[in-house]
Amino acid sequence: MDKLTLVKVGGKIVEEPESMNRLLKDFKSISGYKVLIHGGGRRATLVAEQLGVENQMIEGRRITSREMLDVVTMVYGGLVNKNIVAGLQALGCNAAGFTGADLDIIRAVKRPVKDIDYGYAGDVVDVNTRELRLLINEGVTPVIAPLTHDGKGMLLNTNADTIASEMAIALSEHYNVRLVYCFEKDGVLSNPDDDDSVIPELSRELYREYKTSGAIAAGMVPKLDNAYNALHNGVAEVLVTNAANLTRPGSKGTRVAL
Amino acid sequence: MDKLTLVKVGGKIVEEPESMNRLLKDFKSISGYKVLIHGGGRRATLVAEQLGVENQMIEGRRITSREMLDVVTMVYGGLVNKNIVAGLQALGCNAAGFTGADLDIIRAVKRPVKDIDYGYAGDVVDVNTRELRLLINEGVTPVIAPLTHDGKGMLLNTNADTIASEMAIALSEHYNVRLVYCFEKDGVLSNPDDDDSVIPELSRELYREYKTSGAIAAGMVPKLDNAYNALHNGVAEVLVTNAANLTRPGSKGTRVAL
Repeated sequence: MDKLTLVKVGGKIVEEPESMNRLLKDFKSISGYKVLIHGGGRRATLVAEQLGVENQMIEGRRITSREMLDVVTMVYGGLVNKNIVAGLQALGCNAAGFTGADLDIIRAVKRPVKDIDYGYAGDVVDVNTRELRLLINEGVTPVIAPLTHDGKGMLLNTNADTIASEMAIALSEHYNVRLVYCFEKDGVLSNPDDDDSVIPELSRELYREYKTSGAIAAGMVPKLDNAYNALHNGVAEVLVTNAANLTRPGSKGTRVAL
Repeated sequence: MDKLTLVKVGGKIVEEPESMNRLLKDFKSISGYKVLIHGGGRRATLVAEQLGVENQMIEGRRITSREMLDVVTMVYGGLVNKNIVAGLQALGCNAAGFTGADLDIIRAVKRPVKDIDYGYAGDVVDVNTRELRLLINEGVTPVIAPLTHDGKGMLLNTNADTIASEMAIALSEHYNVRLVYCFEKDGVLSNPDDDDSVIPELSRELYREYKTSGAIAAGMVPKLDNAYNALHNGVAEVLVTNAANLTRPGSKGTRVAL
């Protein structure tokens, strides 16, 4: 099977044009087939504020009201996605931007209301890569925004880390997939206050220990749960690393291992 | 050559969810290959107002400031485009939304400054349909937003009527293309105050007469200039009609003829 590198990028990297441009250059120089999945950073929160749309958060997770859904559709699906595509085209990388609604790539259901009503948040139910693979095999680089659809005309806001692992799993039926979670740090840290404490290889057992001790907490936990889910379902390799390490294999970063 | 219908829709139809949904149903039932090109309606102006971005117009044409470029990228490339795609998916039509930057479909140059500086407005220089045709031939329906790119990383705001005729010309090398300009009226009117005065067939000569008399004026002139440009460059048929007439050939509407 051909190699395919799926890079997920989010956080501050997407927010700052300078770091974004650097990432695109590094991403572009990855050899072989590749897919980029992006979050939206704080830009959606900013635009929401300017538009007077309330940014509701419960336990660190965004509640997607109808108005906020329009904002994320504008910011993730339009502003961020299309500027990444134009930036990659400028580097000679033939990119095409998609949401989960395009080509029916990712179907989701509106998250069922239990204790919390997350609003227009989507839980992935199906990934279809048929037409996407046609493009990939022609040398096109898909750039995917964190939006899905319910097949009934509704777009849904969906976690980019989850989209990355679900896409990696679906693509691993056809390619040898390496999934790379890019963020500001050099990897998963054993001490959150020490940027040099990168864990080179994170086994399931080690992960459990660090979770118990509290060294790995907050946003890193769902990211790593997604990583293990990917490894359990056919993805060949998962890395958590700094965007700058993208093109330097063997350098810093955390290899997630079963 | 296979038949392909390219529909351009704009104005009030895009603004109102009800008329938009009706259009999508009519559009969906067109048989054979099809492409949808949309404008943005007044939604961009509205969002710009809410964001405090000044909406500059000179002689009825929008000046695209850097801030306004972000607004149209959000509204045309995100909000409008992705909701059309989700709406078509709900009808069982496998749509995919694109700007001119995606798949490098439409390259443009920032309009040279003569008397007026139009800002980030793009004049089309090249249309590439290679990857798009792969998708079309697989049954995918492209939905195209009125944005192009300059190949150097900059998105550009581009007139949707122009994109429609340029795309129709490029696709007519590979398909038998029918270009349909949809708007609120039943066709081109010989008397702007009488909705029943639809001109069934508009020859070049008749067009000249109506322009001289002032019966055809304002926004209709560039639309028809685009229509004649398309007919002169290989497009088989151009219609100007009401969206509701889309699926009823032989009914009302103006056939533009050389």
